[in-house]
Amino acid sequence: VTEDDLLASIREIVSVDDPRVALGVGDDAAVLDGGVVVSVDAQVEGSHFRRGWLSLEDVGWRGTVAALSDLAAMGATAEAVISSVVIAEASDALGVMRGAAQAAHAHGAVVVGGNVARGDTLSLHTTVIGRARTPWTRSGARVGDAVYVTGPLGSAALGWRLLERGDDGGPFVERWRRPRARFDLRGAIAPTACIDLSDGLALDLGRLCRAGAVGAVLEEAAIPTEPGLAAAAAAIGEDAAALSLGGGEDYELAFTMPASLDPAIAVRVGEVVEGAGVRIRARDGTLRDAVGGHQHF
Amino acid sequence: VTEDDLLASIREIVSVDDPRVALGVGDDAAVLDGGVVVSVDAQVEGSHFRRGWLSLEDVGWRGTVAALSDLAAMGATAEAVISSVVIAEASDALGVMRGAAQAAHAHGAVVVGGNVARGDTLSLHTTVIGRARTPWTRSGARVGDAVYVTGPLGSAALGWRLLERGDDGGPFVERWRRPRARFDLRGAIAPTACIDLSDGLALDLGRLCRAGAVGAVLEEAAIPTEPGLAAAAAAIGEDAAALSLGGGEDYELAFTMPASLDPAIAVRVGEVVEGAGVRIRARDGTLRDAVGGHQHF
Repeated sequence: VTEDDLLASIREIVSVDDPRVALGVGDDAAVLDGGVVVSVDAQVEGSHFRRGWLSLEDVGWRGTVAALSDLAAMGATAEAVISSVVIAEASDALGVMRGAAQAAHAHGAVVVGGNVARGDTLSLHTTVIGRARTPWTRSGARVGDAVYVTGPLGSAALGWRLLERGDDGGPFVERWRRPRARFDLRGAIAPTACIDLSDGLALDLGRLCRAGAVGAVLEEAAIPTEPGLAAAAAAIGEDAAALSLGGGEDYELAFTMPASLDPAIAVRVGEVVEGAGVRIRARDGTLRDAVGGHQHF
Repeated sequence: VTEDDLLASIREIVSVDDPRVALGVGDDAAVLDGGVVVSVDAQVEGSHFRRGWLSLEDVGWRGTVAALSDLAAMGATAEAVISSVVIAEASDALGVMRGAAQAAHAHGAVVVGGNVARGDTLSLHTTVIGRARTPWTRSGARVGDAVYVTGPLGSAALGWRLLERGDDGGPFVERWRRPRARFDLRGAIAPTACIDLSDGLALDLGRLCRAGAVGAVLEEAAIPTEPGLAAAAAAIGEDAAALSLGGGEDYELAFTMPASLDPAIAVRVGEVVEGAGVRIRARDGTLRDAVGGHQHF
């Protein structure tokens, strides 16, 4: 069962017709009456990170930003963070909460609730609340729209691979450890559809396409990467193109809108087309299905 | 370190002066701008329950009600539930979500968000959102107020002890498995302070007293218990009075207000006094400190 299958089943279980819920399970976040936008994300030791790779503060920061990014993808403000920590040593929860508070503050939000429970496997569950008058959704992409991304991709995935090899320093590891959510695009863009890139461009753009019943074609040469990524990837035998297409946890946004955007704001990487699925045009002009990305199950 | 010490430290870390936060960490729930009330609670296998004691649906129900009860204690409505599940088998998350959806529905709320992560130790982290124009808090108790509780105490604690002995049927086990949160008091009472009884009357009323810089004296003979509790407790060598004073997870409310309440609405169990701490007057008139209750650390 894939994560998307599972979420579809959950959606069936919880689906209700309720006037207080403008948008329920299925988008990056839910929207309640009055433009209150809500989302949750979890970081579990062994699944999302290994203990030696992150300080307690890093765990708090990463978990909080991962959740906040869902609000950014909805065009919402970040307002409140609620953190539930499972941890073996109660006093260690303070480090996690400190990182959560730092991340909240850095994105204009406040930690308003916390819970600590004892357990051998460290996990952090972060619910975030923001507001949006007109939330962006995943589902409005139109044939002919351009596909944009808000920044370089593949850096966090390279950081993860470096950590797996025992190399725990440098900018790519730092991008994985201390991501930022892109609230700065709010007000600067008017997307027809938007999603945050937590599981990689191929997979997340595929979700956006499915939600809008459209397809997309990416231009491989257009996908932005950080300076030095290709060389650093090659040095450890990794393919930079695969990292930028399939690598998750950069927490940039992918969005669609008519192709009229100042290139300083976001990078145009492709086009919305009829049909379904995401294809990618290689530098030699050949088209293939865009694959890769992190399915949690 | 006790749970209360830990929460005090967390409060220091996250405390901010922010106009969007009317009431931050420290009460049963936080209050955001516009009367949005938020709380979180976690249920962790091995700490809050054992797997054989609960079906997956029960886990979802219990975890959701435990969180919703914090909203009830604030005099808020229940509106939205966001559930984050850690579970070994992804498909088992559906059972947990089904129980969460049932509990949400039974209390007038809707599940609007869910997250599933893989982990060997089952846990459920539930954030709840409601609304209250004038939230009740823990901190307003005044000397001379009566202390009320909304229903019989000790039933869930007896249920837990029966389960520990391998006796997994009957009404007390059911009270522990399938608690209800007391939203029905909303509109019927005007408390000066209120708290939900998740950790037991002695401990939770102590928190209410500390928040209000007052003390309380309970009348042992007045504390309500379910018919049959004393006999069922005695049959397994447990003390009914200790269960009703120290036993948690009944999710009734304790509140203070001037002594003018219709006894059909809530049971008067004591009085707010000057000083600090909770004492209890035994049937023979002697006063002692009220002890017992569940400290999570």
